[in-house]
Amino acid sequence: MNAQDIPAYMAQVGAAARAASTEMARAGTRAKNTTLTELARLLRAAVGPLGEANAKDIAAAEAAGLAAPMVDRLRLTPKVIETVAEGCEQLAAMPDPVGEITGVKRRPTGISVGQMRVPLGVFGMIYESRPNVTIEAASLAIKSGNACILRGGSEAIHSNLALWQLVQQALVAAGLPKAAVQLVETTDRAAVGRLIAMPEFVDVIIPRGGKGLIERISAEAKVPVIKHLDGNCHTYIDAEVDIAQALVVTDNAKTQKYSPCNATESLLVHQASAAAFLPQIGAIFAAKGVEMRCDAASRAILADVPGARVAEASEADWAEEYLAPVISVKVVADLDEAIAHINRYGSHHTDAILTTNHPNAMRFLREVDSASVMVNASTRFADGFEYGLGAEIGISTDKFHARGPVGLEGLTSMKWVVLGQGEVRS
Amino acid sequence: MNAQDIPAYMAQVGAAARAASTEMARAGTRAKNTTLTELARLLRAAVGPLGEANAKDIAAAEAAGLAAPMVDRLRLTPKVIETVAEGCEQLAAMPDPVGEITGVKRRPTGISVGQMRVPLGVFGMIYESRPNVTIEAASLAIKSGNACILRGGSEAIHSNLALWQLVQQALVAAGLPKAAVQLVETTDRAAVGRLIAMPEFVDVIIPRGGKGLIERISAEAKVPVIKHLDGNCHTYIDAEVDIAQALVVTDNAKTQKYSPCNATESLLVHQASAAAFLPQIGAIFAAKGVEMRCDAASRAILADVPGARVAEASEADWAEEYLAPVISVKVVADLDEAIAHINRYGSHHTDAILTTNHPNAMRFLREVDSASVMVNASTRFADGFEYGLGAEIGISTDKFHARGPVGLEGLTSMKWVVLGQGEVRS
Repeated sequence: MNAQDIPAYMAQVGAAARAASTEMARAGTRAKNTTLTELARLLRAAVGPLGEANAKDIAAAEAAGLAAPMVDRLRLTPKVIETVAEGCEQLAAMPDPVGEITGVKRRPTGISVGQMRVPLGVFGMIYESRPNVTIEAASLAIKSGNACILRGGSEAIHSNLALWQLVQQALVAAGLPKAAVQLVETTDRAAVGRLIAMPEFVDVIIPRGGKGLIERISAEAKVPVIKHLDGNCHTYIDAEVDIAQALVVTDNAKTQKYSPCNATESLLVHQASAAAFLPQIGAIFAAKGVEMRCDAASRAILADVPGARVAEASEADWAEEYLAPVISVKVVADLDEAIAHINRYGSHHTDAILTTNHPNAMRFLREVDSASVMVNASTRFADGFEYGLGAEIGISTDKFHARGPVGLEGLTSMKWVVLGQGEVRS
Repeated sequence: MNAQDIPAYMAQVGAAARAASTEMARAGTRAKNTTLTELARLLRAAVGPLGEANAKDIAAAEAAGLAAPMVDRLRLTPKVIETVAEGCEQLAAMPDPVGEITGVKRRPTGISVGQMRVPLGVFGMIYESRPNVTIEAASLAIKSGNACILRGGSEAIHSNLALWQLVQQALVAAGLPKAAVQLVETTDRAAVGRLIAMPEFVDVIIPRGGKGLIERISAEAKVPVIKHLDGNCHTYIDAEVDIAQALVVTDNAKTQKYSPCNATESLLVHQASAAAFLPQIGAIFAAKGVEMRCDAASRAILADVPGARVAEASEADWAEEYLAPVISVKVVADLDEAIAHINRYGSHHTDAILTTNHPNAMRFLREVDSASVMVNASTRFADGFEYGLGAEIGISTDKFHARGPVGLEGLTSMKWVVLGQGEVRS
């Protein structure tokens, strides 16, 4: 496709999505669920052809000298395919969010007023590498009654096209419009510029990728963006705490996996717990090779732990999302200081307090201004599947519309429903 | 204030608002309610001084040759003051939305996951003329635990400053921060440009005014905007309908008041009801001097009504928000055509079906893509007070975040709360 053809092509994709969204909004639950189970079946039956399409992307990535972890993220192995197929089946088994009517109340005038859950309309999804996102986004769109326009990374184009064909087959088999899920077929970057600037066709943009990509899209978009920026998550060890439990939870929050956005990046310890807690967690981190960037008080304790990699924290460390075996550590005077520190340096993603003190737990829940606030649990739980959403289209670090893991409900809005018997306003 | 001082001034206002928002988020229900009842008391006690401040604005407006309806909107009469004072008391009597925890469910891992309602943070309110909006916005901010920055019209500056002083007195009396409600003290337009471009201090902008103002603010804002654009509302008369009831409701929807955004601007009539319904509604409209802009079918019927002002509708009429004694009228073949017409030409604000047919009522509710959808009720009911929200900060014609009348809940968001007993992710 020539660059000058892209505006017309994207307008055509947008118009088709808008038209399909009307049909999807009134699609029956059975048709949507049939699409999802059929898609699961088609995915399992296509492990061979999908692998062939994926091999082209892998070969091109290796030829281009892409780093090994990046190449790994591209792989559409039979295991990855089985996981997304199961995800489709799980979504099919979930209740249909569309049409739910809640909170209907009679008013003194005689009318009854409530709210009905309806799809947002059309969402645009911009993502990189992992081709499984194609199926995750498509399946969430189908179940939530939205249409979507998918723009995957150019490095995954063959895999994405092959997956998209299966989605279209499944839609047609269930009598739903093919244009409910469209994949942008050009890898030209100008297509992204158009996708985020068509408010007449697209209601919301969901980008998944690095912070730079998301900031650029947010700045340029002419429609709302569900943003996921940093994940600088904190675990705070209170004065009254079950030390044995705190060790297990903190270890899990930091080391169970280093790369996810919900991994703990900063450890705050009440001064009353520092002497008991820090040497033990320091030993665990030392054994796993986790570097500790410390304030003076924690450093004085941790420096004595055999094998510990201890450094002085700079101001920048408190705001850092390492996504690596590194953690910042600070001793705080009290809960007030912990909350103030988290609200100042955190990224409003996920923060946990480990405590046996009930008032402190409640204050932490109320006053920490983050999308997820936790008591006595690992920050790693901040995830749509763990929260029972079935799947997530992304995680929002915004407060507006959707906050935290975004599942089916985040792809809907509530309209007002008024039921009368001929009432008039006086 | 010099123009070059405005960025620093607005940054100072923004920083104070952000700091106050933290205190407001944890303010107790009693302190917030005390502020509101104290504010009501202060307003009633200040009818004299408020009138004097208002007289300055009125005199300036008249000297500037402002049109009489515009001058009327400026007036802060004892009756207007009593109405806003009652509004404060009604808000005080409502449940506190902040801290509500809903939907807590145990997950297979052992954690319990739910959502807690919390304030958005800081909102900026941009409005014109009516000084009572100052109190409405301030009282909604106080009850919802937000801080707000108010930017009223320059024509109401003396009234707004006098009202704001009472708000600050009430905040101080209840031990809440004065900066929870700030009024921009300069009337320089550059202040608006800054207010909408400080994402570090302001979480959302709520403009109230003409469509041009709102479109300009939306285009330039660096934060989300709760938008209220057109109100091109429809009333549709179905084939099976209680004609007597339909006449009363349609009359009310159009003529009870011509200027509100929820007044009906377009009347659609099923062809099976046209012969029975149109001559009677035509006679009512003729008696009230309502001009009818008609398609050929309705015109053929309405032209025979004595005294009726009937004209041919142009394509533009179907999309018009008249806010005047004018209505567009069209005969449709069936419910499908009615829904398609509304979704194409409407403004997604408020639309009603008048019918005795249950499946048609349900289809209309589901398929009309508007913030408020009604059965057998006047579109004039689309209002935060009528819906039981206590008060409204505005009406959203967007789908994202808040839709329709926006009250206390629209000024909050839901964060995730996870309650554990030491669970870790495996």
